[in-house]
Amino acid sequence: MEGAIKGKKTSHKIMERVKGVVDELRRNGKQPGLGIIRLGEDPDDLYYENNIKKNARKVGVKVKVMEKPCHITTDELIEEIERMNRDDTISGIIIFQPLPGHINKDQVANSIDPLKDVDCIHPLNLMKIFQGDLTGFIPCTSKAVIDILIHNNVSLEGKKVVIINRSLVVGKPLAMMFLEKDATVTICHSKTKDLHKLTKEADLVVTGIGKPAYFDDKYFNENSIVIDVGMEKDESGSMAGDVDYDKVYPKVKAITPVPGGIGSITTSILLDQVVKACK
Amino acid sequence: MEGAIKGKKTSHKIMERVKGVVDELRRNGKQPGLGIIRLGEDPDDLYYENNIKKNARKVGVKVKVMEKPCHITTDELIEEIERMNRDDTISGIIIFQPLPGHINKDQVANSIDPLKDVDCIHPLNLMKIFQGDLTGFIPCTSKAVIDILIHNNVSLEGKKVVIINRSLVVGKPLAMMFLEKDATVTICHSKTKDLHKLTKEADLVVTGIGKPAYFDDKYFNENSIVIDVGMEKDESGSMAGDVDYDKVYPKVKAITPVPGGIGSITTSILLDQVVKACK
Repeated sequence: MEGAIKGKKTSHKIMERVKGVVDELRRNGKQPGLGIIRLGEDPDDLYYENNIKKNARKVGVKVKVMEKPCHITTDELIEEIERMNRDDTISGIIIFQPLPGHINKDQVANSIDPLKDVDCIHPLNLMKIFQGDLTGFIPCTSKAVIDILIHNNVSLEGKKVVIINRSLVVGKPLAMMFLEKDATVTICHSKTKDLHKLTKEADLVVTGIGKPAYFDDKYFNENSIVIDVGMEKDESGSMAGDVDYDKVYPKVKAITPVPGGIGSITTSILLDQVVKACK
Repeated sequence: MEGAIKGKKTSHKIMERVKGVVDELRRNGKQPGLGIIRLGEDPDDLYYENNIKKNARKVGVKVKVMEKPCHITTDELIEEIERMNRDDTISGIIIFQPLPGHINKDQVANSIDPLKDVDCIHPLNLMKIFQGDLTGFIPCTSKAVIDILIHNNVSLEGKKVVIINRSLVVGKPLAMMFLEKDATVTICHSKTKDLHKLTKEADLVVTGIGKPAYFDDKYFNENSIVIDVGMEKDESGSMAGDVDYDKVYPKVKAITPVPGGIGSITTSILLDQVVKACK
């Protein structure tokens, strides 16, 4: 794999497979459905929602959106989740994150039916990943990273992987997945010293810090594979990753662009997991 | 901290604290009790059991042992666990590991009452650690490593830690705990390449591979802190760690011996968690 690693091809492959499974499910009288719970009207949420709807339509997954005000209480939100848990037309549920500060996230995560938890927030589903079992639901961004590497035939065994993110939805599950693929994994964060030395010596670097164009070419070497899961608006208001793409692209072996990299796969992975939940 | 890091002092501190809490609990009419489930009569198990009994007596924790034959079925074992779950005189339960191959480990782990799970095998308790919450039960060996470092005033923030073990009871929870202390963590294993380069560049190395005297001085530098959680019989039949102690001791900043290091703390941590469960 060399140059720009675009997400489109991987996404396309996943979407094709999903469509095939949906067609088969429908022949057997089953209709996969995704329930979205969205609080308020954050533009990023609306953008993601539209993207999901557009792609769901392509493969034949039905989408039901439950919109609630941001000032909803934890109990009221859990009631909505439980309603979706009981709704037979909904195979999978996603609750858009981040939730407002006053919501008890643990209670919310625990209230979703683990069998419908396609965004993988329930402790039981996360736990499976830490146990090394990757057959269940997986947080979409983490799965997108592994899938793009597999689809591009990047071997991971014995490779030095550096992950710059220690969150429960990206860095930690990703570390477990790389370990499962027999890579040697280093987890870095804001308190890490001499970060550029660690990244420069790695075979593969995953960045997820949310600072536009933070990493320039001094962080990498000519054999680096760089996976950028950052996605935020830069000063000019356009979507940017953590890596200074123009500077880094000519100096490394391969890199995922933003937009058009990891972000373009996550929706297809979400739909893939909805179909899995329906089966 | 320099030279040999013995476990005795740390263990003594924990035992003193535990005794204080037991005395107080008793004054309030509560008696902490530990239930041990042991299959067969493995000499290592019997040694551990006697060690637990001896130390439990010192601090006033009651111990009840349930011995069952190795050919017990999973269902029968779960019945025993559930009996202990219901037994009010038992605050905490430990099931000696490893269990025979025919036993379904997942079912066993899920059957223990999470509130009595002092050896931390239930997914809900492990999950808390991955969520960065260290207030619950923690696998005793992992906690022993962190406790000995804290008691010896080793600062962990920004330190490069290499862990050579990726199991669910040692390497993975330990990695999460070091992350929580703001260390940069690398998880290594049998497929890791150039291991000696990684360990030599680390500030702190935790070994847990179960091969007597495998690591010699070429794996470390003069500032290395080495924590040896290996514990196995060497050719002569005596207890040995993963590190060739005699060769490494003079060449590093500090190292835990085997025996007398991490292993000597785990029992006191187990009792500490029994008392916590009783509270």
